[in-house]
Formats: sequence, C-alpha cells, structure tokens
Amino acid sequence: MKSTPGFQSFNPIKNKFNDKTFFCSNEQEIEYALENAQEVSLIFSNLHKQKRAEFLVEIKSNLLLEKDSIWGIYHSESGLSESRFAQEFERTINQIQLFADFLINDFQEISSTQKEVSTLNTPSLIKKWIGIGPVLVLGSSNFPLAYSTIGGDTVSALAAGCPVIVKAHPMHVGTSSRVAQCILKAIEKFNFPKGVFSHLIDDSHQVATKLVQDNRIKAVGFTGSIRGGRALMDLAHSRPNPIPVFAEMGSTNPAVIFKSDIQKNIDEWTSNLAQSICKDAGQFCTKPGVILVPNNSDGEKFCDLLTHKIRNHESYWMLHPSILKNFEFLKIRRKEKSKGLLLEKSGQLDQMQGRQAILKTTIFKLISCQELNEEVFGPFSIIATYNDLTEISNYINSIHGQLTFTFLGSKSEIENNQNLVQLASEKAGRIIFNGVPTGVIVSKAMNHSGPYPASSDSRFSAVGTDSLFRFLKSVTYQNIFG
Amino acid sequence: MKSTPGFQSFNPIKNKFNDKTFFCSNEQEIEYALENAQEVSLIFSNLHKQKRAEFLVEIKSNLLLEKDSIWGIYHSESGLSESRFAQEFERTINQIQLFADFLINDFQEISSTQKEVSTLNTPSLIKKWIGIGPVLVLGSSNFPLAYSTIGGDTVSALAAGCPVIVKAHPMHVGTSSRVAQCILKAIEKFNFPKGVFSHLIDDSHQVATKLVQDNRIKAVGFTGSIRGGRALMDLAHSRPNPIPVFAEMGSTNPAVIFKSDIQKNIDEWTSNLAQSICKDAGQFCTKPGVILVPNNSDGEKFCDLLTHKIRNHESYWMLHPSILKNFEFLKIRRKEKSKGLLLEKSGQLDQMQGRQAILKTTIFKLISCQELNEEVFGPFSIIATYNDLTEISNYINSIHGQLTFTFLGSKSEIENNQNLVQLASEKAGRIIFNGVPTGVIVSKAMNHSGPYPASSDSRFSAVGTDSLFRFLKSVTYQNIFG
Repeated sequence: MKSTPGFQSFNPIKNKFNDKTFFCSNEQEIEYALENAQEVSLIFSNLHKQKRAEFLVEIKSNLLLEKDSIWGIYHSESGLSESRFAQEFERTINQIQLFADFLINDFQEISSTQKEVSTLNTPSLIKKWIGIGPVLVLGSSNFPLAYSTIGGDTVSALAAGCPVIVKAHPMHVGTSSRVAQCILKAIEKFNFPKGVFSHLIDDSHQVATKLVQDNRIKAVGFTGSIRGGRALMDLAHSRPNPIPVFAEMGSTNPAVIFKSDIQKNIDEWTSNLAQSICKDAGQFCTKPGVILVPNNSDGEKFCDLLTHKIRNHESYWMLHPSILKNFEFLKIRRKEKSKGLLLEKSGQLDQMQGRQAILKTTIFKLISCQELNEEVFGPFSIIATYNDLTEISNYINSIHGQLTFTFLGSKSEIENNQNLVQLASEKAGRIIFNGVPTGVIVSKAMNHSGPYPASSDSRFSAVGTDSLFRFLKSVTYQNIFG
Repeated sequence: MKSTPGFQSFNPIKNKFNDKTFFCSNEQEIEYALENAQEVSLIFSNLHKQKRAEFLVEIKSNLLLEKDSIWGIYHSESGLSESRFAQEFERTINQIQLFADFLINDFQEISSTQKEVSTLNTPSLIKKWIGIGPVLVLGSSNFPLAYSTIGGDTVSALAAGCPVIVKAHPMHVGTSSRVAQCILKAIEKFNFPKGVFSHLIDDSHQVATKLVQDNRIKAVGFTGSIRGGRALMDLAHSRPNPIPVFAEMGSTNPAVIFKSDIQKNIDEWTSNLAQSICKDAGQFCTKPGVILVPNNSDGEKFCDLLTHKIRNHESYWMLHPSILKNFEFLKIRRKEKSKGLLLEKSGQLDQMQGRQAILKTTIFKLISCQELNEEVFGPFSIIATYNDLTEISNYINSIHGQLTFTFLGSKSEIENNQNLVQLASEKAGRIIFNGVPTGVIVSKAMNHSGPYPASSDSRFSAVGTDSLFRFLKSVTYQNIFG
C-alpha cells in the first residue's frame, strides 16, 4: 500500500527518533485480520460473559508481568514521566478489572423478558444484548495505555463480545506492539481463535481508511482530533451500509469563575487550574482551555495569580514534534485572532518542551470569533473577562458541544444560577462544580462525551462501564421453546 | 417554498381525492415551529417526569374523545377497515399509557451515582438522562396512528423530554391534523409553551429537508422506505454538526420452513402466513416477504396450499395510487429478474385493491440476485426452495440487515440448528419461532430495528419503552453540593 518500508517512533526527551523500525501492515495482513475477525465474531459474541471476563483478567495479568518493559518503551515514545506512567498503568489495569467485574456482577445478557399471555394471544419475548461485530479501534496520541491498544475502547468492545482490530498509533507503536503481545498471549492461553484481537501498524491514514470502509468492520472507536474523527465519520457514513463511529474529539472545556468566593479560594482554584493546564504539557482532552473571570479587581487578582502560577509551572515534553509545532502555531494564531495579550513562560526550555501560556481577552471576543473556541492541544488556556452573567449565557449559547463545563463559585452562586448550569448541560457531557475537568474517573457514573464535535454521539460515553453499550445491539427472541 | 397552494388526500375505496384542501406550511410557520421548539427545549427536558406522564395521559384522553371523528378521516384517507382502525387506535392508546407508566414507575432520571471517596480523592458523580433536544418526526404511510403523528416516535420523544415537530404524512394529512389538535389541546390545558409540539404540512420533501438541516433540530425519527431514510441520514450527516437519525426502513423478513414438522403444521402455518402476507394488503414493514421451503414433496404441498390460500384470500385496498403502482411494477420486475413463476389472485378486483401474489423461485436465485431481496410493499411474497441447510446459511450470509427472521419447525430442528439462529441474529433485530413477524408487540422486551438497511442504527429500537433512549443523552454532574 505504501512505498516507504517502515518508520520509527520519536523520543521527545532525547529529541531524536528511536532506533527500532516498525513496518506498516500490508494488504495481506489487513485482509487476514479482517477475515479472522469476521470468522470469530459469532463465536466470541456467544461466549459466556464469565469467560470474556476471565480473558480480560488474563490480559491484565500479562500487562502486570510486562509492566517494567512497557515503562521503558512508553517513556522513550512519549516523554511522559514515571509517575504519570504509574498512574496511567494503574488506571488501565483498574479499567480492565472494572469491566471484568461488571461483566460478572452487573451485566445482564438478557435485558428484558415478557411472558406469553395466551388470553391476549401475545407470545413470549426475550431480549438479549449481542456484540455489534468486529470493532476497529484507533487510539489516542496522549494516552499510550488508557485510551489506546488496551484502553477503554478495546476493553469495552471485548467485554461486549466484539472482536477488535487495533490500528496502532504511530507515535507509540512500540508500546502498542508490546501491549498487543500481552493480549495475544491471553488469546493463546484461552485457546481463542486469532481473530479476537489483531494489531495493525501504519504511520499514514491508509490502513485505517481501508479498514473503516470494509464491510466486515461493524463499528469504530476513535480518540483524537475533530478533523480525524470527522473524516472517519464521513467514511463510515459513505459506506453502502453505514456503521456507527464513536469518536471522542476536541473540546475547550470552559470554566466559569463566579465572583463572590474568589478571595476565599483564590489560592486553591489557581493552583488546581494551573496544574490542570500545565501537567504533562496540558495534553489532555479535558484540559480547561477557556476560563471566564469577572471583570473586577478580584477577577484581576485571580487572573494575575493564575498567570503567575502557569508561567512558573514546571514544563513538560510534548509527545511529538508535530504536536509541538501545531501548539506553537495555534498559540500565535489565537493571539492574532483575539488581539489579546499572550503571556508565556520565559527562559530556556528543552527543545521538545511546550512553553505554557495564557491568552488574555474578553468574553465578547470569544462570542464573536468562533476560532477562539477551538481546542489548542497543549499547556495553553484563554482567560476571558465577563461583565455580567448575561454574557455568560450568551457565551454558552454561542459555543459548540463540549466534553466538560466547570463552575467555580459559592454554593449560593451555583444554586442561583441553575439556568447557566442547565444551559451548560445542553452543551457539555459533564458539569464540574468547584473542581477541574482533568482526571476522568473510570466508573459507571462517568460520562465522557458531549454534543458534536466533543463526540460523534452524545448518547454514549467513551469512559466507564456504560461505554460497553456503544458496541452492543439488541435482538429479541419471540416464542422461544421452553 | 412551493408554487402549488395545497393538496388533498386520497380515498382508496372511492378511488378519488378527498374534498378538503390542506395547505403546505410556509417559511414563517416552519421558522415559528423551530424557534418555539428550541425555546421550550430546556424547560421541557427539566420538567418532572411525572408531569410529562400526565401530559401523555391527557393526550390519550383527548384522542379517546375524538375516536369517532378520527375514524371517519382515517378511513377516508387510508381505506383501512373499521376493525383495523379499532386495533390500531387501541394500540396507539396503549402505547401512550405504556410510556406514561414507564415514566412514573420505571424510568430513573438519575441513571447512576458514585459517592465521593475522600481518601482516594475522587469526587461524587451523578449521571442524569436529559432530552437530546427538538426531535423531527416523519411518520409512516401505513400506520396513520401508531407510527405517525402520535405514534411511537412522538410519544417516546415527548416522554424523553424532547419537543417534537411532526411533518404530517401527506397521505393522511387530515388524520394527522385531527390528532395534532388532540396534542395541542393537551398543551393548552397544561399551560405548556407552544413549542412542545408543532405540526407542519407538506406534500413534497421540501419542508422535511429544511427541518433536518436546521441547527435547532437535534434528532430525527423516521419510518418509511430505504431511499427516504437514507436521504435523511445523508442530510443529517452532512450538517456541520451531524445529528442522529433513527430510520426504520425496509426488510423482507425471511421465514425458513424446516422440513420435519410440515405435515403436522401445514394448515396452521399456511393460514398464518397467508394472513400475514395478505391482511390489509400486506402493507406492513414486518410482512414475510421471503419464505424458504424444502425442495421435497412436503415442501411442494406446503407451497401449493400457501399459494392457494393467498390467491383465495380477501383483497384489500392499498393506501394510495402511487403505492399500488409501485407494487404492480415490482411484482413484474421480481418475476422478470427471477424468471420464476408468478401466481396471482385471479378475478375482478376493485381498482385500488392490491392483487396478492406469490413468486416461486429457488434459494439459489435469491443468493445470486440481490434485487430479489429488496422489499416489495404489498401482498406479495417469494417462495424459494432449498435443498439443504448449507444453502440457508449461505443465504443468511448473503442478505443485508432485516427487522425480523422467522423459523418454523420442530423443537429439535430449531435446537439442532442453533448455528442458523445465531447467523440470523447477526442479520435481524428479532427472531420469531413458529409464528409470524407481523403484529409487533409494544413492550420493553420488543426490539424493532436491525442492521442497516432495516434500520439506521441496530443499537436502538423503534418500538417499546427502550425506544426512549434514542432521544436521551447522559450528563454527569461532578461534585454537586449537598
């Protein structure tokens, strides 16, 4: 399919490509993965849920055995720290266990039944969940584990009884390959057919494009940019038989600072926000990218302190030169568009570190220039001043779908502004009070999605056990014997 | 928007247009409906579910008061009989009550919660269902009540807290208008804002096209042809912010006759199938359109008896000259394509009655000519002979998505052919054993959908209380006070 034979991942800290060359999957490997996935689909979907749970736990065990070797590759391909790795690894492991436990304790394969009523001449009905079929998973750049090869999409699809084909993210293809081995080892141990999980490699869009258009793929899970997600949605929709794409895309995750409790909380709020914006170079889909502060002296103090903390925050390596380049480009672009004040960290940084920054502007600018409301991936946030709460409701009405919306304020301010909370609920999948949007808890009660373009379908979540239902359909059996 | 000022519905029994002229909604009326729906969306979605249930019950009461007047218009616009009206009316009423009861007794606005765990530094989460926003409903031609203006789509959307805009089906615009009055009267009694429900009229695609592309519409419910459904899906997908379309489209609803119990059940099975194919001129989305019978003497007897019963069945008026014309065209077309034997009812019929027919061919023809697997709307079915069960699995693998798949056979035959049942479960949303697919029970355990093109999204049902979830999204509230 392509002329270049292979590619390497990039080490952000060493600022050079890693040694190992990975080769792109060829036509034959793609066909093999598709054929195997199709073949095993029925068997895997009809496997007892307990068995699928045990399979997930086996994957978890294999990952734990490989933890040290995964850390080495993970670090060399992402520049992310050991503590971040430890956190993400634990999250990934816990996520697998959560789905295994959910399968065993909570998930009901039969969702509802209706007994025959012979006097009314109505038959019996048994409604069952079954896997939607082979799922293509395209993981994220920023979570080599938790949102990638064995991340939420793969685990929820396997739990749902769907074979999975992962197209490895090229930025962490080595991590992906090592994780894939842990999955394949579990398949071997359980004597499952190969098609339950396949791992394909590509550093272009060709393999994914081919897969999403193939009739044997029945759903897609994606985490990434709006452009990438929309392209996949368009491809999936243009098929003779369109399939669902669950794409978790971009968001600016606005945060409103109400005025009356600023003085009391200024230290805590600015510290939490600075950390949420700067940690791991702000490379999070839930990073607060727009902060609305009152246009008064408290707001000014808040803004000064937050700016100070951001400028003095530790800097981090960005994942890849292309991400760093895009980040630097967008910072300047947002500054030009807003004619606002760009306040960056000063001093010498490592070449691949992202230079954190705040852009000061007004809510009026945000309302009048939609481009300012597009995500900047990296340690950057816009602080926009507002004069009154009407401006905030105008702002919420003007924005597109968000993953999160945050309110920081006193209890009474939040209670008195339920209209804003309701407006925000129309635009965002999660509303946070007096906290920060980063740190997505993996649980049944989590919702990680939002109206387009935050996600492709606000009716499903990308995180937590409910995310299983992205990959399940119902079949009703009428008048089953016995 | 259009030059013709108005149009009339058609009376199939009198074979002439009805007197009353209906005028197409103009730009201003469309804009008014959209603006009102958008305005009321938040309020209606946040209304207590008990209130929405009471509102539904009030609509039901109004319909009951208008039953006689609705019957007159219904009959004049559809040619459907009084007993069919009585059935459909009762089904519609029961459906409304089912959703009202579901709201009160079963539906949980809060779907899950997670308590704060301060030692783990995890916040509290409350996950709530909220309405997706204004829903456009485009009803079916063949169910002027149960799948139209106050049919499953409208009732489930209102129950979900979504304002509804109905674009009346032009074939029963009078029925639709009368039903709409019952809804509007309930809105008035409850002092709801007007935007909760709007009724628009058009005999072309212009109004629907405009509505589905409008940013204020957040979801679409549709029942009709594959061509119509796909056009809506394409329009909705081409929006800057794509929205979900739930389209329930076409299906041939294949039925397999296993061989060993034919002799024992030949009378019952042929009578039930003949009735399912011919009743109300077979104008049902679940009409069995393909019947697979063994190529042996029992199969031949079965085929002869079924053909006899179909040819001798009472004939019914078809809904509209365009439907009759299409039906007659497709009968001939299928005959030509299959080179099979077309066995029609003989004798004189009323001009608008559909002449029921059976086309005899082989399963091999069905597998090799996809066109034979496309729905013929009306009293027509293909009987195809098979030699062995491998041919049936090849056939199932060859077909696209179906609403239903039926097996008629002995207990042991069905148990011994679970591989066929599983294959069918991949292709159809409901599997029927020893019954007929028509007569869709409205209950939680019903699934009325299937892989494309039976429906646009096999993860949701068009019928039963679960259909509510087509129009709900989740929002998680993190760290709510108290």
